[in-house]
Amino acid sequence: MDGDGDSDDTMVSEIADHPFGKPNYTGRKWPLADTRLLSPILPTKVIAVGRNYADHAREMGNEVPAEPMIFLKPSTTVIGPNAPIRRPKQSEQVDFEGELAVIIGQPVKNVPAAQAAQAVLGYTVANDVSARDFQRSDGQWGRAKGFDTFCPIGPWIETALDPADLAIRTTVDGETKQDSRTSELVHKIPELIEFVSSVMTLLPGDTILTGTPAGVGPIVAGQEVSVTIDGIGTLTNPVEDA
Amino acid sequence: MDGDGDSDDTMVSEIADHPFGKPNYTGRKWPLADTRLLSPILPTKVIAVGRNYADHAREMGNEVPAEPMIFLKPSTTVIGPNAPIRRPKQSEQVDFEGELAVIIGQPVKNVPAAQAAQAVLGYTVANDVSARDFQRSDGQWGRAKGFDTFCPIGPWIETALDPADLAIRTTVDGETKQDSRTSELVHKIPELIEFVSSVMTLLPGDTILTGTPAGVGPIVAGQEVSVTIDGIGTLTNPVEDA
Repeated sequence: MDGDGDSDDTMVSEIADHPFGKPNYTGRKWPLADTRLLSPILPTKVIAVGRNYADHAREMGNEVPAEPMIFLKPSTTVIGPNAPIRRPKQSEQVDFEGELAVIIGQPVKNVPAAQAAQAVLGYTVANDVSARDFQRSDGQWGRAKGFDTFCPIGPWIETALDPADLAIRTTVDGETKQDSRTSELVHKIPELIEFVSSVMTLLPGDTILTGTPAGVGPIVAGQEVSVTIDGIGTLTNPVEDA
Repeated sequence: MDGDGDSDDTMVSEIADHPFGKPNYTGRKWPLADTRLLSPILPTKVIAVGRNYADHAREMGNEVPAEPMIFLKPSTTVIGPNAPIRRPKQSEQVDFEGELAVIIGQPVKNVPAAQAAQAVLGYTVANDVSARDFQRSDGQWGRAKGFDTFCPIGPWIETALDPADLAIRTTVDGETKQDSRTSELVHKIPELIEFVSSVMTLLPGDTILTGTPAGVGPIVAGQEVSVTIDGIGTLTNPVEDA
C-alpha cells in the first residue's frame, strides 16, 4: 500500500501468491477507495486470549489469570472489512471486542519470548465478536465466540510496526466505546507467542487475538462498529440480523 | 478396504484426490498390515462436545448440560493411528477420552436434525486427549485440549454405518477402562449436527467429537491406548514424553 491508508489517493498494489516472505508484486495497482478488501489472512486457527486487559477483566467481574487463558475461534468466523457481522437470532446480546491481532509468519513450536518477533509476519486489527448471553451460560465459549462472521480481521497486515504501545479505540456509530493502549496488555505479545507455541504448533497465517480492553458492549442491526489501532488502520463492519 | 479390517489379509485400496463423493480408485492395493495409515481426514475444524454421556458428567462432578456444550480443538492436534501421543512436560496429568467422531461430507449451515444424515460423510474413532490439570485450572479448555498430538483420529472413515447404538471401548495396555454404547449419548448425533451447524458453517472434513463415556483416566509414556467402536475398528496410539 502506498500512503497512510486514510487519504483518498492511497493506492493498493496486488501481490501474487501469498503474503509470506518477500511479497511478489504483480505491478497492478488500484485506488484504495475503489477496492473491496477481503480479510488479509485466512488462518488455519484463531487463538484468542481472554481477560488480558485488567480493566476489562474487572468490568466482567473476573480476575486476571496468572497465565494467558486461551480459547479458539473457528476459521469460519473470519470476515473482512465492511462485510456484515450477522447477529444470530438465537442470541439476545452480541458484543463487539476490539483487539490487536498478531499474524504468524512461519511454522513455529516452543518459541522463547526473546525470539518471538521472528515468528511474526505482522499485525492487524480484529473484532472478537461474542454472544455474551451464551458466553455466560455455556461454560465453554465454543458457541458464544464461534458464530459465522464473529471474527472481522483487517484492513491489512502491517509488517513494520512496534506493537508494544499503540492506541486502540472502538466506536459504534462514531461514539467511542473502548479507548486504551496495547501497553495495558497484561500478558505481552512475546509472552503470548511463547505460551501458545508451547502448546500448539503455529502455522503461517495463524492469528492470535491479544484480548480486549474495557468498554465492551452490545451491537444491533443497522449499527456500524469500527476498531482503530494507530499505526495500522481502521476495521469497520456493519451489523445486520442473520 | 476389503475385509473387516481385523484379519491379516485385509487389503487397502488407494483413492485419488479426496474422500468426498464417489471415491476415485487408482487401482493400486496393498495389504493393510504393510500400510502406515495417516489420519483419514485433515479437518479445518474439530468441534468437541463436553459432558455428553451422563455417567462421565457424573464422574467429573458435573451436570449434563441442557444444550450441547461445544469447544474446539486446533487442527494441529490431529494425528493418525499408531502415531505417538506426546505428553507435554508442563502437564502432570494427561487423560485419554475415547469418542465416536462424525466426519462432515459437504458444506452445510442450519441443518435440521431430520436431514442431518445427508451432511455426513461417515464415522470414525477419535481420542480427545486432555491435560486434566489445565482443564481444571484454566476455565477455558483451549490449552488443556489443544496440545499437538491430542486428537488421534482413525483408523478409517466408515461410510455405511448406523451410529445410533455401537459398542465403544477404551483399553490401556489391554486393560478395559471405558465400556459403553453410543446409545448412551445424551445429545444424539442428528441433534449435535443441527446444533453445531446453527452456529457455524461446517465444511467437508470438519469433525465432530461426540463426547466420552465414564472411565477416563491418565496415560503415561510407554503405555498404549486403544479405542474400539464396533462396526468401525480400533484406533491405537502409543504414549511418549514430549
